[in-house]
Amino acid sequence: MPAYPPALVTLTTDFGLGDSYVAEMKGRLLALCPRVQIVDLTHDVPPFDVEAGAVLLARTVNAFPAGTIHLAVIDPGVGTSRRGLVLRTRTAWFVGPDNGLFAPFLDGAAAFALLPERLAAQGPAATFHGRDLFAPAAARIAQGIEVEDFAIPIDDPVRPPVRAGGRIVHIDRFGNCVTNLAWPGELPAEGGTTPCALHCGVVTISRLVRTYGDAPTGEPVALVGSAGWLEIAVREGNAAQRLGLHRGDPVMLALDGGARP
Amino acid sequence: MPAYPPALVTLTTDFGLGDSYVAEMKGRLLALCPRVQIVDLTHDVPPFDVEAGAVLLARTVNAFPAGTIHLAVIDPGVGTSRRGLVLRTRTAWFVGPDNGLFAPFLDGAAAFALLPERLAAQGPAATFHGRDLFAPAAARIAQGIEVEDFAIPIDDPVRPPVRAGGRIVHIDRFGNCVTNLAWPGELPAEGGTTPCALHCGVVTISRLVRTYGDAPTGEPVALVGSAGWLEIAVREGNAAQRLGLHRGDPVMLALDGGARP
Amino acid sequence: MPAYPPALVTLTTDFGLGDSYVAEMKGRLLALCPRVQIVDLTHDVPPFDVEAGAVLLARTVNAFPAGTIHLAVIDPGVGTSRRGLVLRTRTAWFVGPDNGLFAPFLDGAAAFALLPERLAAQGPAATFHGRDLFAPAAARIAQGIEVEDFAIPIDDPVRPPVRAGGRIVHIDRFGNCVTNLAWPGELPAEGGTTPCALHCGVVTISRLVRTYGDAPTGEPVALVGSAGWLEIAVREGNAAQRLGLHRGDPVMLALDGGARP
Repeated sequence: MPAYPPALVTLTTDFGLGDSYVAEMKGRLLALCPRVQIVDLTHDVPPFDVEAGAVLLARTVNAFPAGTIHLAVIDPGVGTSRRGLVLRTRTAWFVGPDNGLFAPFLDGAAAFALLPERLAAQGPAATFHGRDLFAPAAARIAQGIEVEDFAIPIDDPVRPPVRAGGRIVHIDRFGNCVTNLAWPGELPAEGGTTPCALHCGVVTISRLVRTYGDAPTGEPVALVGSAGWLEIAVREGNAAQRLGLHRGDPVMLALDGGARP
Repeated sequence: MPAYPPALVTLTTDFGLGDSYVAEMKGRLLALCPRVQIVDLTHDVPPFDVEAGAVLLARTVNAFPAGTIHLAVIDPGVGTSRRGLVLRTRTAWFVGPDNGLFAPFLDGAAAFALLPERLAAQGPAATFHGRDLFAPAAARIAQGIEVEDFAIPIDDPVRPPVRAGGRIVHIDRFGNCVTNLAWPGELPAEGGTTPCALHCGVVTISRLVRTYGDAPTGEPVALVGSAGWLEIAVREGNAAQRLGLHRGDPVMLALDGGARP
Repeated sequence: MPAYPPALVTLTTDFGLGDSYVAEMKGRLLALCPRVQIVDLTHDVPPFDVEAGAVLLARTVNAFPAGTIHLAVIDPGVGTSRRGLVLRTRTAWFVGPDNGLFAPFLDGAAAFALLPERLAAQGPAATFHGRDLFAPAAARIAQGIEVEDFAIPIDDPVRPPVRAGGRIVHIDRFGNCVTNLAWPGELPAEGGTTPCALHCGVVTISRLVRTYGDAPTGEPVALVGSAGWLEIAVREGNAAQRLGLHRGDPVMLALDGGARP
């Protein structure tokens, strides 16, 4: 068991904060492993939206220290025969349903399917695996128990179908539209701008800036966001609302007269 | 004083998270007892809705380890002569206003009325007992101070009037309608269903499933939720919206040609 | 380094809780200082609303123990040349943008401008100073590192223009309208009321009560709130909605036939 510092567990769900579910998971974690340190990633993933959960996890986990246990439950298939998953990567653990939620972390990871009979004292409640299956699994990892004690290695974790092409994968609270496209060129110098051609429906963004503060107020611009992906933004404004953009909208970066992603 | 692990305090309020109130309570707790571990149960109880707070507490506390201190403030009568209450049950502590918020835990519990003059250095602010009275009481319990030091035994904590009959007591974020009815029969086998007759206004639910995943998509079903009560649910849908159900709506479970509860 | 209790860091942002940003800051803090204790003040400050953040901080920090580090990011100018600020007051630390967010704490405080090159391993991401600049600064303070190691003393932190006159500075979840006016007289006795004349547009409040519970149901009253300022409230009702009041509305307290302030 890691004696110091205490194990760190993050929580990501679509449960919201107005209900008892998140607290029930925390209570179970603390009952099984009193020294665990719990950090909410978010509980406001749109209900049942596995892909949104995966995007949020991918944006966040790099900020956490090595060894962090990421417990995530967006689980439309709860109570069906879908498996419970543990992933061990080079730097982190992931625990939750095997439904594609951890797709960004599968490559190179060791995958395990949970053995419910080893985890739930009296069989997990059929409707709340977060509390009765995933929290106990995370607590065991936090205690330093070998994963083989409550899970078996698998080589076929669920991978969502790969979607080709650039698109908006996330819209943040400020209306910034985060894409899955990288910027292949140099960043503009501080205060400067670089021409670009980022197409999203009828909208074309023609200017890449280094930071929000470099954008002319009111003009939509592109920039490389804090996680390294191209974003469409309006300084002190809401780009998604202004431009009528939505998650999933296709985007295309035109380069040298050609198009890519 | 319990040296290890640190004392655990949960918080339940109708304060919301956009204001300073919750943080003021946490600051006061940590100022008085630096090693306390704080977990939010929820702060989104509808304003002044004591019964909703009681239902959420009842759904949650069993998940927490023995000795947990549950501090809850839904308090329309703050600043009036209503008493402050400490409850000691076999497994937990409760601290908050004596207004029925802890009704589910009264049976068999030892009850105490807070002595404000022992808790607030300069008299509590008349408007914020959560920070100036209940948080200091919880901190003293966390420190292992005897409750008789700041409260006196009482035998008449406020009990809300008992409401007869089945009803919807909670609607969760997903629209699942939680009732106060137990299912008296066997649960269906995995993947199977059991006939039932759960009436709610003009709606009749005729099928009990084991888990959301066993429900035909789109059909309202009954199931036994994670806290042990009958729920009305729609798989990957919002039952409350679909069926026009609200908290407080009466429900009736018809059995063997008769009706119950 | 303070070995016990662990350093306490509060977080105040306009990031909301549905996104990855708050968790990224927490992860960075814990990666740099594993023993830090993090408490959310609030993340629901209206986007870019520096003054609202300052008001919420001013209402809250007194509840926290001496030595608490308050990390706050409401930062419309992120990525511009605005400085990063550390304030050391007699009882607390503040870290965030130098844009007036910490105006209530400037008097008598020692101010420092952050040296980004000492804090960000590879230069801070131009768009997320909260994670890449302010969190590392707070972590260093939590570790007991001298502030002069990563910041230089300054004597000109940004002060917002002083706005004369009374106004509503905050409206809480319950609709209570908090002003920046103190009550110069005696408080009414318990259960009693005191005449007053608090004018807000066409509304006049003529009764000061000691506590919400002393107000006649439905009648707007004034009272001295938990932070010491005059509030306009309606018992178990929403004063802001009922009276059509908004943050920023001017208020005037008439005394002895005259007006003040």
